[in-house]
Amino acid sequence: MRKIKNGIILAGGNSDRLWPLKDKIFTMYLGKSFISYLTEQLSQYCERIFIVVNDLNKTQIQDVTKNLHTYIVQNKQYSGMAGAVMSCSGKLEGEALILNASDYFNFEIISKIIEKSQDRSIDVILIAKKVNSYFPGGYLTIDGNTVISIVEKPLPQETPSDLVNLVIDYYKDFDQFLSYIIKTETHRDDWFENGLNLMLTKRRVEWIQYSDYWYALKYPWNILQLMKFFLFQIKESANDLTSVTIDPSATVSSKVVLGKNVKIGHYSKISGPCYIGDNTVIGDYSLIRESHIGSNCLIGSSSEVARSYIGNKVSLHRNYIGDSVLSDNVLMGAGAVTANFRFDEKDIFSSVSGKKVNSTMRKFGSIIGKRTKIGVNSVIFPGIKIGTNSLIGPGEKVTSDIPDNGLFFEGSLKKV
Amino acid sequence: MRKIKNGIILAGGNSDRLWPLKDKIFTMYLGKSFISYLTEQLSQYCERIFIVVNDLNKTQIQDVTKNLHTYIVQNKQYSGMAGAVMSCSGKLEGEALILNASDYFNFEIISKIIEKSQDRSIDVILIAKKVNSYFPGGYLTIDGNTVISIVEKPLPQETPSDLVNLVIDYYKDFDQFLSYIIKTETHRDDWFENGLNLMLTKRRVEWIQYSDYWYALKYPWNILQLMKFFLFQIKESANDLTSVTIDPSATVSSKVVLGKNVKIGHYSKISGPCYIGDNTVIGDYSLIRESHIGSNCLIGSSSEVARSYIGNKVSLHRNYIGDSVLSDNVLMGAGAVTANFRFDEKDIFSSVSGKKVNSTMRKFGSIIGKRTKIGVNSVIFPGIKIGTNSLIGPGEKVTSDIPDNGLFFEGSLKKV
Amino acid sequence: MRKIKNGIILAGGNSDRLWPLKDKIFTMYLGKSFISYLTEQLSQYCERIFIVVNDLNKTQIQDVTKNLHTYIVQNKQYSGMAGAVMSCSGKLEGEALILNASDYFNFEIISKIIEKSQDRSIDVILIAKKVNSYFPGGYLTIDGNTVISIVEKPLPQETPSDLVNLVIDYYKDFDQFLSYIIKTETHRDDWFENGLNLMLTKRRVEWIQYSDYWYALKYPWNILQLMKFFLFQIKESANDLTSVTIDPSATVSSKVVLGKNVKIGHYSKISGPCYIGDNTVIGDYSLIRESHIGSNCLIGSSSEVARSYIGNKVSLHRNYIGDSVLSDNVLMGAGAVTANFRFDEKDIFSSVSGKKVNSTMRKFGSIIGKRTKIGVNSVIFPGIKIGTNSLIGPGEKVTSDIPDNGLFFEGSLKKV
Repeated sequence: MRKIKNGIILAGGNSDRLWPLKDKIFTMYLGKSFISYLTEQLSQYCERIFIVVNDLNKTQIQDVTKNLHTYIVQNKQYSGMAGAVMSCSGKLEGEALILNASDYFNFEIISKIIEKSQDRSIDVILIAKKVNSYFPGGYLTIDGNTVISIVEKPLPQETPSDLVNLVIDYYKDFDQFLSYIIKTETHRDDWFENGLNLMLTKRRVEWIQYSDYWYALKYPWNILQLMKFFLFQIKESANDLTSVTIDPSATVSSKVVLGKNVKIGHYSKISGPCYIGDNTVIGDYSLIRESHIGSNCLIGSSSEVARSYIGNKVSLHRNYIGDSVLSDNVLMGAGAVTANFRFDEKDIFSSVSGKKVNSTMRKFGSIIGKRTKIGVNSVIFPGIKIGTNSLIGPGEKVTSDIPDNGLFFEGSLKKV
Repeated sequence: MRKIKNGIILAGGNSDRLWPLKDKIFTMYLGKSFISYLTEQLSQYCERIFIVVNDLNKTQIQDVTKNLHTYIVQNKQYSGMAGAVMSCSGKLEGEALILNASDYFNFEIISKIIEKSQDRSIDVILIAKKVNSYFPGGYLTIDGNTVISIVEKPLPQETPSDLVNLVIDYYKDFDQFLSYIIKTETHRDDWFENGLNLMLTKRRVEWIQYSDYWYALKYPWNILQLMKFFLFQIKESANDLTSVTIDPSATVSSKVVLGKNVKIGHYSKISGPCYIGDNTVIGDYSLIRESHIGSNCLIGSSSEVARSYIGNKVSLHRNYIGDSVLSDNVLMGAGAVTANFRFDEKDIFSSVSGKKVNSTMRKFGSIIGKRTKIGVNSVIFPGIKIGTNSLIGPGEKVTSDIPDNGLFFEGSLKKV
Repeated sequence: MRKIKNGIILAGGNSDRLWPLKDKIFTMYLGKSFISYLTEQLSQYCERIFIVVNDLNKTQIQDVTKNLHTYIVQNKQYSGMAGAVMSCSGKLEGEALILNASDYFNFEIISKIIEKSQDRSIDVILIAKKVNSYFPGGYLTIDGNTVISIVEKPLPQETPSDLVNLVIDYYKDFDQFLSYIIKTETHRDDWFENGLNLMLTKRRVEWIQYSDYWYALKYPWNILQLMKFFLFQIKESANDLTSVTIDPSATVSSKVVLGKNVKIGHYSKISGPCYIGDNTVIGDYSLIRESHIGSNCLIGSSSEVARSYIGNKVSLHRNYIGDSVLSDNVLMGAGAVTANFRFDEKDIFSSVSGKKVNSTMRKFGSIIGKRTKIGVNSVIFPGIKIGTNSLIGPGEKVTSDIPDNGLFFEGSLKKV
């Protein structure tokens, strides 16, 4: 099978909606960063890969690109996806496949694109997924194989179809696509879609239906779904037990991946699928279920971690962490708990840019930013997010989001 | 040995004092309802059994009576024990033994009644128990074998004897007894006793001393004493291990009865005597001591249940439940605790109809009604009762009783 | 080797700074009181031992002195160290070695004193330890082997040397020393030092350098350092297992000393060095690390005790006790926690006589006086001290010291 000449990964977005999480493309799953998964997969289908990054992650991206791929720092003059592709102007020519670094899907769909691209009369090939319930994305209006228009984020009652566009766009001639972007007026949010819509009226645009898994890192809790996907990739496998220490009284089920120098204490139980990173210590009486734990953590005695994503250098002690995301260097004092369900058993909502968003999860704990410390016996309510570098006092109840650098003591936010 | 012609179980009472518990006659012990224990025992001594119920439990009683026994719905016009026997008017004739469905005792005493009843000159046989300390019941004044009078709930310093009347009354002629009830004025509370006292002056009434165990379900915490009695009936016995799953790392002592499909997790310890109902899961690191747990419960990881009665479909998670009663469908969040002793080590009091009642227990936790949910890290003070369908927020301290449908958040009752 | 004729242990001090701890000389380490360690060690170097006590401990001291040593009750007229030696006036004659019952060190240094004392022209021999950082003690000004003066508690920038005087003083003629004390004016605090300084100008005073361990019981948390010293004396040794009960599922590491009738429950882990006194029960799921636990304690289920000193008859239940001192008869309800580090990872300060004192410990929990009870799910902040006979309600946060007999409920001190 031939490869597409150019693959472009758009990874320069700001992702305000992911707050307090940062660097989604560098989030590790099973010991590998998300962006590495994308490039490795895409390499199977594209000859060259371009990664469009922003100023903040241009240093870190070099560990990924090395000599294999090219990174392009997004021109600050242009924002959004259109801005990202504009920044590629002059860097590549000919056909291009454009991906968004927020999405994960079964890359085999690209072989269907390659097949369809044999027909050189097709200028653009889009991918669409049939949805059962409303999703705030772009909906296709089609006529057979042909895409007539894309309606961006229509009201739920006004969707023109049940086909949501995934950003896995094939352009036969990248410069041709750029010319439509340039012709379109510069709207911040829907510039990319406007350019594409203009092109739809002038060029031949076809579509392919996709019906396999699709993960979109839109909100911080989406990490939990992606984590689950990766955890369920773990096969029964013998760990390299030369550097790992498992107390004979501990119980480690199958489908548990243990990093180097992992230590598992007395009477602890790891119920797979689980991933535990290098040098992490699971103390005594700790119960880990369906979770992803980073490296150099101390998952202190008598803790329970269930269906949660734990970063690196996290310290726990006698905690219950359920359906939560704890970033690097988070510390929780003894007895602190993430509450993770509502009494009415309804879906848990979380505040995003001032609006309550339905997580669609009935069990959902907290999202905690880097270096934040939580005092002993504190309670974090379901769906709450706490920023980076924040401090929550002992015995506190956290019932609303805490900003970055927040100091929460005696029931109120003392400082931001 | 001959049987008494009619046995009447009075089970129509309202039991306000048992709040928030309901349906005391259907409370299960070792897999059987309390009323079933009563009917099975009584069947050994009576030919026919009549159960007087109220409107609310008339449907449920039919599972017990089936074709074996007769149930009578108490006439709403009459209340109390006298009303209950009035409702039996015309339904039976001849001799009758009358029991109260609140009491449990050694039924062998009835064989002594049967023996004494051979003397057909005796119209009534009453049972009395010698008490060491004051009990708020009816006290007998006697002259040899003859009962002179019954003094209902005298002041502690005015008890005429140390003989308390138990409701295990034999009447040679039920209609004769009814006639005295009818002759007496209709007082709500002591009508039955008035009728009996009138009869004492006209008829030959003798008594038998009883000195074995006696459990009266007067207050909700009395369930704990009755539970203990039943638990201590458990003999060393092999459970049917075909459907039960016990992790090899768990410890199950002798005198533990396990229902069908019970699962016991890693490092859990069941210290008998204990009863665990069908389909209940005891999670990891859970310690169960001298407790009675219903069916379909999830006694979540790292919980400790000591000397407590747990209903069906109860969910626990990292809780300490001591000397408490949790009704069906109660849910407790991680780290919630029932405090169960006073700092001064004195007896724990509990509010009943607005009055503080001494439970006579130095260790006594909470009584929690059906479907009530308790938030993570909350504390319930000793002797506190929480109604049905109530919600207690996370991290709350509950220091006084919470009514049915109560909503307790941020230190106060938000809604009733 | 010859012995010094008289050894004097000054044990009559009030030790306000040790509040809420009392009776430091009777604190037990590895089954023996501190004063017994002192007398046993000193007996190797002195013929007779005199212990100067105060009115309060004169009864208890008799268990230690028996017929072996002499105790002298300090004359109330005189306070401080000078008062203590004044109280010895007429009780002994000739040479004397004077120790302070607050200090522990390697007694072998005394053999060097004995050696030097062969030179009968030396009137006094003092011991000094080179310090790396400022210590609030007496500093020596020296000229070769000769002591020129002692500067008592100079300002840190005004220390005349880095040699701190330890109270291990040898006097060739005790009465001669007393005469200098008498000649000096009666200052409360530095009377002893004034007498010694006067003597320095008139007599030949030499010094010996000491460079081994030295523990000074100045603040209550110093018990933790002394405890650690004693724990690390424990050698691998077979306990007398005839009276001890260790569940087969428990884990007891080496260097754990178990008293008579100690019971260790299911799934508990004792990680040495540890000392556990007679009749103490370690419940199920309990983790004890580098700690000293007295006799007749109930270290209840699911507790963790780390680097802590626990007195006798202490009851724990699902607690975390870290870097703390719990006196006799302390009781902690389920889920109560001692917080033991600051979020900023700085040294923990503690209030002593109204002044904040740096404990120089980065991990330091609480000091709790005798018979104090702490409610369920309560939190004690780092460095907090709670007096004797105090009560802390359930779910409280204790952020400042609580006096003796304090009653702390609903966030405030209700009574003192």
